[in-house]
Formats: sequence, structure tokens, C-alpha cells
Amino acid sequence: MKNKYLPKFKKILLFGLNKENLGQEEVKKLGNLCKQKIFLEKDSPKLFGELNDTDCLLVNQGMTVDKKMINNAPNLKFIGILATGYNRIDTVYAKSKGIVVCNIPGYATESVAEFVFGLILEHLRNLEKAKQISDFGDFSGNGFNASEIKNKEFGVVGLGRIGSRVAEIALAFGARVSYWSRNRKKNIEKKGINYKPIDTLIKKSDFLSLHLSITKETVEILNKKRINLIKKGTIVVNVAPMELINLSGLINRLKKGDMTFIFDHPDEMEKKDVEKLSRNRNCIAYPPIGFITNEASAFKKEIFVSNISNFLEGRPSNKVS
Amino acid sequence: MKNKYLPKFKKILLFGLNKENLGQEEVKKLGNLCKQKIFLEKDSPKLFGELNDTDCLLVNQGMTVDKKMINNAPNLKFIGILATGYNRIDTVYAKSKGIVVCNIPGYATESVAEFVFGLILEHLRNLEKAKQISDFGDFSGNGFNASEIKNKEFGVVGLGRIGSRVAEIALAFGARVSYWSRNRKKNIEKKGINYKPIDTLIKKSDFLSLHLSITKETVEILNKKRINLIKKGTIVVNVAPMELINLSGLINRLKKGDMTFIFDHPDEMEKKDVEKLSRNRNCIAYPPIGFITNEASAFKKEIFVSNISNFLEGRPSNKVS
Repeated sequence: MKNKYLPKFKKILLFGLNKENLGQEEVKKLGNLCKQKIFLEKDSPKLFGELNDTDCLLVNQGMTVDKKMINNAPNLKFIGILATGYNRIDTVYAKSKGIVVCNIPGYATESVAEFVFGLILEHLRNLEKAKQISDFGDFSGNGFNASEIKNKEFGVVGLGRIGSRVAEIALAFGARVSYWSRNRKKNIEKKGINYKPIDTLIKKSDFLSLHLSITKETVEILNKKRINLIKKGTIVVNVAPMELINLSGLINRLKKGDMTFIFDHPDEMEKKDVEKLSRNRNCIAYPPIGFITNEASAFKKEIFVSNISNFLEGRPSNKVS
Repeated sequence: MKNKYLPKFKKILLFGLNKENLGQEEVKKLGNLCKQKIFLEKDSPKLFGELNDTDCLLVNQGMTVDKKMINNAPNLKFIGILATGYNRIDTVYAKSKGIVVCNIPGYATESVAEFVFGLILEHLRNLEKAKQISDFGDFSGNGFNASEIKNKEFGVVGLGRIGSRVAEIALAFGARVSYWSRNRKKNIEKKGINYKPIDTLIKKSDFLSLHLSITKETVEILNKKRINLIKKGTIVVNVAPMELINLSGLINRLKKGDMTFIFDHPDEMEKKDVEKLSRNRNCIAYPPIGFITNEASAFKKEIFVSNISNFLEGRPSNKVS
């Protein structure tokens, strides 16, 4: 009922998005928010022609929206990204043209936080091997050993949404949890999660989980010097972008065999770099499946669509420019 | 210094225990608590001869101490078990002879509770498969899906030490946690963990974790009727003895393919029963590695030795008869 009186977009252009990755129901909802909608594949030659009368551009994760595209869309008012990261969108130029850009922050907080503990516990308890030897009928448990999260020093680098949840869950496991973040978070400190300077945090932690986004300040925040501060036996988990870490420093440290590194974004790296990392048995690569729960996926689509309707209602949500 | 003035045992007989499973240091400590110590293998023919002047009998997990053994140990004052369970010790007969029996409760609480979440998250996130396809260089993440613990109904059957920790950790993951236990636990209910009658709990839970010990009342507490109450899609974890569950009922339910069963005590079952279970792809067997962390193992040995010295000091700890 409400939508009837709402302004609508003239034309929504869905770029790199289709019914499969967006979902039948969401596509239907978008239909109520515009007079016309067009789906275009990633490298479609029709792109610039279609952009001309587009007032709403929706793009999939990893898609580029540059000056040239924006210049070819004189009627554009809104860009929506089906992702948290928007570093391939020229948001500064969009802003200069009066175009609002919205992203989807925090949709996968729980998904990623739970994943971190999956990775840690899988490694601590050697679950892959345990399942495999069970499949062969060996139920002796011989040759297994393990250690606990409880009473260990658990360090969280970056206390945003995901980092905070990781810290809280680690606390419930009985770890001694500390964090470093650009800003002190007094609320979370009240729960018994202590602030430490980054070098101290890295030096003391038995578990170290990285939860920073990429900015000028955070690129290679784990530099060579800091990588060598990591304690022997520490398990480092990085479900954030690998740009946080100096790669050659990490590879050199891994060669010593005295710590473990677990990550889930080999997909965003050069193949040769992944190979250099993976040569080390103490480096465990996962596919990028941290953020993919059904719940996260549903929530993401929900926010994506509500960003659009909120903009139409004159109160844009999740604006990044 | 203190030990110098303590009474000592005349002869400690270590049955099925050796320097390897007990540890060099603990064996040394035992040396300070007795005048003589003897190690005997499980099926040693020397057993009855050696029992005659034994006043302290220490046995490994799973060893039997029956009437015949007790009758052959007229000087026996103390039986110590390197385990929690003592169902193979004739504690009633031991008591009738004035023999104190001590066990080691709760040493593996954290070890087992953490393991439960390892099993759940490994399954939810398909980590075994993820590691394997990564090893083959496939970093696409295609074909993976997952669901979260958060906001799900998490049921704990049996709220002893381990059950309580599992409930607390599930709460930190953001689950709605309920329990059934023989006795209401008001303290834990204050934390937001709700009591439910057992049938309701089984009917409502998306995750169901069993944490009961075996007694007359708990044998097959998950009977055929209750097994069929389990919701579609539920993940049942049993790191407790399999005697809690009616096996043919479980096998029939698993055949339907609409729930998942994860357990870690195939070692205590008939081989043919394990095979019947394992034929179902929705049944996941692990070796018995829930209680084996280094921390649990160290704590276990510590309590084992302190039970002995406490008895000698006239204040026995962890008496079971």
C-alpha cells in the first residue's frame, strides 16, 4: 500500500546481478521501486548505451564503477553495491555529481565470527584428520593431541563489528581477551576485554585474529617487524584482506615452522603468492566461505533492497558518499 | 618438606599404568608417597601375588577391580582411578571392606565443551571439504553454504559441568539456549538458559547436545519415541556414552536423512553397530578425542596424585565410595 505513493526510479540497471545471485523475491521487490529494470552481464557491450537514462545503478561485489561510467550516466542518482567493500567505486567522483552511494555493512558479522572459531577449533582438535581416520575404521584416537582456548591469551586486532563478536565469544570460551583498535572501546572493555598497544598484543597472544578493513593506515599493519614479534606456537587467523600483512615477512616467518597461519582469501591473491604460502605446512588456506551463511545472505539482500527504498523515501541508509 | 612427616603407603601397585601414560613427574611424586611401587601390565599373571601386601591400588581408565581382586588384597586401603567413570570398580564391595575409592571428576570439562563447538562448526561450515578443495587449488568457494548458531534453539540434555559450559558458550554465540536436567539449576537459569521438559526440548532444538552420565535412569533416555521427536534439520551431538540412545531407533531415524548425528565414542561400541550407523551419510563418527587436551591431561594427573596425598593426610578428595 505504502509503496503506491512513493517516488520510483525510472530505470534500475542491474550490473553483474541476476535473479540467481540476487534472488527471485528481491528482484520482485525491485520491480515495485522502478518503472523499468534492465539486467546486464559484467562485460556487456550495451553498458554505456543503457546507462544514459539510468537513475539507479545496482552492482555486484567486485564490480568497477569509474569516472567514465559515471560520465555516461547523466541521470544517475543512486549507486547500490551488493557488498560491504566499495573500493572499486569512485565514490569521490560520484559525490561530486550528487550521486549517493550505499553499501551493506555488517551483514555477515555473526557468519564471520562463528567461522573464526570453526577455523581455530578445527585446527586445535585436528578434526579433518580425525574424520578421515574414522572413515577408515580407526577409532583409537592414537596420535591425537590438542590444546584449549580457555586461559589462553586471545588477541583481536581491530574491534569493529566482527572483531567485537570474536572477542565476546573468546571470552565465553574462557580466554583472556585483549584488543588493539584505532579507537579505545570503553563499553567492550567493561566486559573484561583489555586494550593493549598493537606490538604488545602481537607479542603476548596465543591466538591472534585480524579484523581490520583496508585503509592507508592498515595496509601491511602486520609488517616484517611485527610478524617476528608473534609468539612461538601462536595461531594467527586472518579472515580479513591479506593486504593487512607483509607477505614476504609472513612467508619467512612461516618457514621457521613455529606458528600457524590460517586464512580464507586466497581468491584475492596472486596465484604465485598463494603457492609460496601454501608450501608451508603451518599455513592453512580456506576458500572464501566466512561470510556465506544463509542468514548473512538473506540479511544482505534485505539491506540491499531497503537501502534503495530508504533513498526513495528521502532518508538514505548506509551511505558511503 | 611437608611430605617428610606424612604417613606413606607401604606399596603402591600401578595396574595398567606406566611412566608413559602417567608421566615421569607424576611417577616421581608417587615415589614420595610410598615405600615401594610396582608397575603391572593389564593381564599380568603376577597380579594376585602382588596384591597381597598392596595398600594402594592405582588403575587406568577401563580397568576392572572386582570382588576377587579385592579379596586378594587384604591390606588394601585406597583405590585410585585415572578416569572419571568407575563403573568397572566394585565400589560397593570396596566400601564394605573399608576401602576408599577415588576418581577424577571434571578434569576435561573445557576440553569436551570446546570439542562440542568444534564438531558443530566443522559440520555447519563444511571445513573438511573446504580444506580439501583448497589443497587442490580451488579457491572459488562455489557449492558451499552454511548456517549460523546465532538465533537457533540450542538444547542441552544434562546440565552438569560439561553441559553447563556448553550452554554458556552457546549463549555467547547468540543461540537461544534451553536445557533439561534431573534437577533445576536456578543459577544457570538466571543467565538466560531456560528449563524445558525433555520432550519439549528435543522437539524444539535445532542443536541438541547430550551431557548425561550413564545411570539406570539415563540408559536409552533418547528412546525410539524421543528420537522421532527430533526436528528436521537438527544436529545432534553426543560426546557422552552411546548407551544414552536407543540404537535401532537412531539408525531408523538416520535412514530418513533429515537430521545429523555426530558422536565420538565409536570405540565403546560393537563394530557392527558402528557400521550400521556409519552407513548413513548424515552420521559422523569421530575417534574419542574430546577429553584429550594437554590441559585436561595435566589436570587429570594432578588430581590423581593429589587424591592419594589427600587420603594420606586424612582428608580424602573425590571419594566415590
